[in-house]
Amino acid sequence: MLVNINSIEFIGLIAASLTTYAFLPQVYKTWKTKDVSAFSLPTFFLFFIGIIFWLVYGIYMKSLSMILANTVTLVSSFTLLVLILKYRKR
Amino acid sequence: MLVNINSIEFIGLIAASLTTYAFLPQVYKTWKTKDVSAFSLPTFFLFFIGIIFWLVYGIYMKSLSMILANTVTLVSSFTLLVLILKYRKR
Repeated sequence: MLVNINSIEFIGLIAASLTTYAFLPQVYKTWKTKDVSAFSLPTFFLFFIGIIFWLVYGIYMKSLSMILANTVTLVSSFTLLVLILKYRKR
Repeated sequence: MLVNINSIEFIGLIAASLTTYAFLPQVYKTWKTKDVSAFSLPTFFLFFIGIIFWLVYGIYMKSLSMILANTVTLVSSFTLLVLILKYRKR
């Protein structure tokens, strides 16, 4: 049985897959190399807080794509933020 | 005269402001230091392509927040991608 997804939501799910999957190579590379010197901490902090708001917005908009993408991205951006805080030189 | 923005769109605009503004310190830092060693190229490539799909989705969803955020993020993520391609060691 197929789930009924219209063509707009199909575009959203492609978007969701791309930006969600995108973070994985970065998390893996940072976890392996512990090299965080090039990262801007404010960027990853603001991005993480922003994703929380996008998730709330997606829930209100009843957008499956936004809910899926932002839930997973919340986890990966949090992981990156923790790695940056852990390995940065102060 | 006030533009009529409902409370859902207000949350979206906070999200848009946060994730859009987030990229600026990273673009500035990367432009200044030319240090891109820590970045994953696939991440920034997939993210950029994903933002194009999010923009199309936002237009179909008639979401002001998504259109604004993804238009600006398209520019900043493209700038970062170019900097990474330019300064990476092969």
